[in-house]
Amino acid sequence: MGIDELIKKVSGEVGCTREGSNCNRRCAKAIRSEAVECRPEGVDTELASIIDHTLLKPDATWSQIEELCKEAVTYGFASVCVNPGYCKLAHELLEGSGVAVCTVIGFPLGSTTAMAKAFEVRDAIANGASEVDMVMNIGALKSGEFEYVLRDIESVVDAAAGQALVKVIIETGLLADEEKIRACLIAKRAGADFVKTSTGFGHGGATVEDVALMRKTVGSGMGVKASGGIRDAATVRSMVAAGASRIGASAGVKIVTEKS
Amino acid sequence: MGIDELIKKVSGEVGCTREGSNCNRRCAKAIRSEAVECRPEGVDTELASIIDHTLLKPDATWSQIEELCKEAVTYGFASVCVNPGYCKLAHELLEGSGVAVCTVIGFPLGSTTAMAKAFEVRDAIANGASEVDMVMNIGALKSGEFEYVLRDIESVVDAAAGQALVKVIIETGLLADEEKIRACLIAKRAGADFVKTSTGFGHGGATVEDVALMRKTVGSGMGVKASGGIRDAATVRSMVAAGASRIGASAGVKIVTEKS
Repeated sequence: MGIDELIKKVSGEVGCTREGSNCNRRCAKAIRSEAVECRPEGVDTELASIIDHTLLKPDATWSQIEELCKEAVTYGFASVCVNPGYCKLAHELLEGSGVAVCTVIGFPLGSTTAMAKAFEVRDAIANGASEVDMVMNIGALKSGEFEYVLRDIESVVDAAAGQALVKVIIETGLLADEEKIRACLIAKRAGADFVKTSTGFGHGGATVEDVALMRKTVGSGMGVKASGGIRDAATVRSMVAAGASRIGASAGVKIVTEKS
Repeated sequence: MGIDELIKKVSGEVGCTREGSNCNRRCAKAIRSEAVECRPEGVDTELASIIDHTLLKPDATWSQIEELCKEAVTYGFASVCVNPGYCKLAHELLEGSGVAVCTVIGFPLGSTTAMAKAFEVRDAIANGASEVDMVMNIGALKSGEFEYVLRDIESVVDAAAGQALVKVIIETGLLADEEKIRACLIAKRAGADFVKTSTGFGHGGATVEDVALMRKTVGSGMGVKASGGIRDAATVRSMVAAGASRIGASAGVKIVTEKS
């Protein structure tokens, strides 16, 4: 088909749409029963319970998010980690399942304003999120504007208001060791619940060394989430040994069903 | 220095910060005079006038943004395109210079909610932005949720309320031709001012074919912005010949000072 014909064809179709909410209700029921029916043997449930089952690609579809949620129930992951626009769908699918809805704030650049991050958090909580992974303002840290970095995280912690866990992504791949330490200390002072290594979007992923450094810096009172490039159970175990208490991964199903 | 010593050293420093606002005021004056003093000969001012001088790296520092703004005044770019957290700084530096402040909304994934995008727009306008480049909800388009895509863009157009130009990034690198056409038609129907090819974050950049397709789809009544991977004047000219009316580039200075 030529471009002109294609434009003409598509022009006639722009108005049409799927009936979204009916579909969600149908899927929610289907997911519960299918998840229970197909729960497999040999799953490492201990590993599963600390994994945020993650799908943050910009082109992820409704049906891929439905599949992600089904897998999370099937394997017993801690949460699904989805973009803010999918919180409501994930919440509808997972309510009462024991799987949390985790979302991302100011993601993946961390360069939105503190007010916008706070708004995103309130919006996400209203849509069913109970965990928010925010990206620190990396440029402000690099500029020596530590007070700005602190206020930025505090605005998210305040907006979460005890209704959602706050994890602070420091994007280790862009930071020197001294900056990683500083970022962790600021996140701790702001009252966040976790520090997290990476967005997984182009700036390197979690390393055992970074996780150990972050754990040593924040002590035992905070969570440490390792994320970015974690694709097998051996890596998960080495991250946990280094101090990680949560793992972000898109390969969760593979990780918990691997033969060791 | 060992990790323990480094943690101890940094712990003592977290409270300190630069005096941000004084610095800005000083820089704003400096930028105006320096820009005028160092205005070079042989600049292609026609090209410069359609370029959004862009710096969206998450680790961009205050001083890099100051440099960007200075260059924009020096060379006469249409705007600086910066992350939302830097709108206020850019506005302070550029007020009265004729260079617009452009920012990005729901960037670069496009997967935040319509409410969050609208909030970001209002926040950006309050901080001095007069152009907003929003990312369309790509996952919704891929899911066939065209009504959702339309409402998402409309919420940004409504929030801009004639105070800011709205450009809709469709992220061509993730779309089939039919999807590109559909995205352009939806953006047009929502009342946006421009369609724009790419975020420049990992999904391919502008092509002459895509720009031609987008221009053909929206007609002459909308702008078309080509962005992503544009690094020389010859490419800019071929994009303009294909129908682009605005160019996003981080290599603007090189582009307008090239010897042809």
